[in-house]
Amino acid sequence: MKNTHQHSLDFLFHPNSIALVGITTTEPWHWTRTFLEGLIEFEFDRPFYLVNPKGGEIKGHKVHASLQDTPGTIDYVIGLINAQLASRLVEECAEKGVRAVHFCTAGFSETGEEERIKLESELVEVAHRKGIRIIGPNCMGIYCPQSHLSFSPAFPKESGPVGVISQSGGNSIYLVRQAALRGVLFSKVISYGNACDINENDLLEYLANDADTKIIALYIEGIKDGNRFRRALEEAAKKKTVIMLKGGITEGGARAVAGHTAALAGSRATWDALCKQLGIISVGSLEEMIDVLVTLLFLPLPRGRNAVLFGAGGGASVLIADEFENRGLRVPPLPPEIVAQIREFTPVAGNILRNPVDYSQAAMNPEAVGRTLNIVSRWEGTDFLVTFVRPGQFPASQISEIQVNFLMSRFSMKQGHFPKPVAMVLEPSILPQEAEAILAAIRGCISSGLPVYYSFAAAANAINLVLNHTERQSKRVLGEDSGSCS
Amino acid sequence: MKNTHQHSLDFLFHPNSIALVGITTTEPWHWTRTFLEGLIEFEFDRPFYLVNPKGGEIKGHKVHASLQDTPGTIDYVIGLINAQLASRLVEECAEKGVRAVHFCTAGFSETGEEERIKLESELVEVAHRKGIRIIGPNCMGIYCPQSHLSFSPAFPKESGPVGVISQSGGNSIYLVRQAALRGVLFSKVISYGNACDINENDLLEYLANDADTKIIALYIEGIKDGNRFRRALEEAAKKKTVIMLKGGITEGGARAVAGHTAALAGSRATWDALCKQLGIISVGSLEEMIDVLVTLLFLPLPRGRNAVLFGAGGGASVLIADEFENRGLRVPPLPPEIVAQIREFTPVAGNILRNPVDYSQAAMNPEAVGRTLNIVSRWEGTDFLVTFVRPGQFPASQISEIQVNFLMSRFSMKQGHFPKPVAMVLEPSILPQEAEAILAAIRGCISSGLPVYYSFAAAANAINLVLNHTERQSKRVLGEDSGSCS
Repeated sequence: MKNTHQHSLDFLFHPNSIALVGITTTEPWHWTRTFLEGLIEFEFDRPFYLVNPKGGEIKGHKVHASLQDTPGTIDYVIGLINAQLASRLVEECAEKGVRAVHFCTAGFSETGEEERIKLESELVEVAHRKGIRIIGPNCMGIYCPQSHLSFSPAFPKESGPVGVISQSGGNSIYLVRQAALRGVLFSKVISYGNACDINENDLLEYLANDADTKIIALYIEGIKDGNRFRRALEEAAKKKTVIMLKGGITEGGARAVAGHTAALAGSRATWDALCKQLGIISVGSLEEMIDVLVTLLFLPLPRGRNAVLFGAGGGASVLIADEFENRGLRVPPLPPEIVAQIREFTPVAGNILRNPVDYSQAAMNPEAVGRTLNIVSRWEGTDFLVTFVRPGQFPASQISEIQVNFLMSRFSMKQGHFPKPVAMVLEPSILPQEAEAILAAIRGCISSGLPVYYSFAAAANAINLVLNHTERQSKRVLGEDSGSCS
Repeated sequence: MKNTHQHSLDFLFHPNSIALVGITTTEPWHWTRTFLEGLIEFEFDRPFYLVNPKGGEIKGHKVHASLQDTPGTIDYVIGLINAQLASRLVEECAEKGVRAVHFCTAGFSETGEEERIKLESELVEVAHRKGIRIIGPNCMGIYCPQSHLSFSPAFPKESGPVGVISQSGGNSIYLVRQAALRGVLFSKVISYGNACDINENDLLEYLANDADTKIIALYIEGIKDGNRFRRALEEAAKKKTVIMLKGGITEGGARAVAGHTAALAGSRATWDALCKQLGIISVGSLEEMIDVLVTLLFLPLPRGRNAVLFGAGGGASVLIADEFENRGLRVPPLPPEIVAQIREFTPVAGNILRNPVDYSQAAMNPEAVGRTLNIVSRWEGTDFLVTFVRPGQFPASQISEIQVNFLMSRFSMKQGHFPKPVAMVLEPSILPQEAEAILAAIRGCISSGLPVYYSFAAAANAINLVLNHTERQSKRVLGEDSGSCS
């Protein structure tokens, strides 16, 4: 039935006019207001209308009593009404010439209740009969910065290369907000919920062929057509880098999936095997997904697994080396001739010149830092550099201005300044008095083109995942792995 | 040689007078200032003296030209001088009647350089000859809030039940600061560095018999006397709960250990086996150590592994259920009669009453939240409750006042209010404009006696580690595991 709609979904991302139907007129913090805030904040430059039988005005925008009362044509509707009213809204939409409705509304099949499952079936039936496409229900819809469309006012306004398909609205918001803090930008993000009409396969096929999307990140809970999904993944992975987080891989998680989006879950083993076979990066959490995105976008591909780690703190050096080697990366010892070069301008006490290079005392000398990084990056044994700062280990009562300046001076070196790729571990602080200085340092790193990780483990894990993926891909190209690809 | 000192180390923690020898007179942000800031901030109420040949004054405190110039007796010295001057300082200390010297100074055996290794041997020789105990060198020394002694002004002033033995200074600072934000307080923390005299065994034996210490957390890089360490661990584990993080478990990490504290490392397998056998909780990172401390201190021991998870967000519910079940905890389905009870006052749309309980819509109603938690906590299938809030998934441009009030109202329920233990996952924000509100919410939870975790994975992991430990311990008591205990 779905396959009768073979046309591109392009129109979903570039509506000429929008109506928000069912926005609350009385509660400023109500969830339905988010969509209006998104349109205002993103300066949506085509007509949009608010609809609520109560009428009135919100933030200077007239509220129309019904969809029919709105002037002009509308091609995209965001439905914020009760589930019981959904089918009727679709009928009204048909009269108004609407092409697609995104139902944010919950209370359909995800409840597991029979009458609610029936409500969803009815909705699909009406929509198909009227030729209207549905996104959702029970989801946040579309974020497309290029067309000034956003379901959160907090998202970045600039476009980027990452396309996201997320069954969950909350997870898509979390992903975009947290990834944006690390410099990741998005082409199109779709939170698609119950997928009663437009589903993960439609969206995957679309993004695989979308010129603005270079990387596809998937949060999938369940799928309805396994064979088509497999084909769509395989095609997408040939054209783009694909990262997948499968939710519901345990019994408890699968039950939550059944509750949430009314789709079937698979086992961990099934999904991991599928990802490996199709050349997809499989991740276990949203945090890991963001770390992988940051690595793909900001770390020029290292030619191998040998890291030189550089930072301050003997104990921190031990722990970061363990984290890296535990995850299949290597922290090779610096040869004596390299140590001798650094020792020429680096005091003995408090600076341990092995690998990691523990520059505890000399760290406050930006010139020495630069010279040392230059020397280790030119060593043939180095494939990439990782610098690390853990403000939480400083004994001062709070991060001082001097320390922040030091952070900034150290990391103002742009990606490409050294002949090897550079990554940065900078642990954030949850203390308000420190958060600002550290966030500024993080932003400085990002604008210098550096991947920033929040912990030793996160950096090691993401770099390893990306290296694993590229190693598999090059074997695939060389044909060594072709058997498992068919 | 060490064993000639059989007396208690109690005097180290309660010095009657202190001299800081080698504190900088010119650079306010220099690391040597930290110790003075600690004494001032902690209102050290016995005499303390500053010593630097340059003389002068720091923050109203006279700087004496030498140790001999200080009036009165001194029983504890913090050495901040160059490594080359260390032995001479010990000679001077002997004349002054000093009982112990903590050398913060680096530049000894940890450099791996022959002449520096010799400097350390000479230091030990002089100290033993003069009957003076040495802490370090290359470490931060002692934090003991009870006696107003702290190597950081940022540490909590209140005492608590956790004793820490950490080879690394930076790791001890990190541990105390980050754990304190979660409500963990300390009896005594010792950063002991190169352990040229007082070592991990002395300290472990001391804390095992210290009435103020209920839990011992160890960060160990290498040990010099394996048999004694094993015996000390075994004895300590019989009296206290012991948690160990072993640094240097990989080749790269072990090389960093060799650089840092000149001690030998062991393999991961060796350490894990030892911990299991001795009834010690083994952790892989400082973050994990803090999570375990929080669990031991704030989560009344659950009688089993069945969790009811309660929060907002369908996607978040799926991910937290996966994290819990992936780590051997169980998220059992709620039976229909429990669901029916909750459904009486909980709207269908946007609230999924399974387990996790996804209270996306009803979450803003504190009364409904309380009633639901009460119902699920009284269900016989529940061993403990976990509530979760992930502010990063909120679409608003920043966490609003209403949202914060909601957080606070939801979590003002004290530990013990329900018949089952309650844990809380509250993800912090690194955004300055959000950090304050969330930190206040975290502090509210702590003052209500709740364990707070920063992520789904962290909560699941720590609760599982503690349950594993208590299960092993009860088998041990029952004699089922006695064979491996001998």
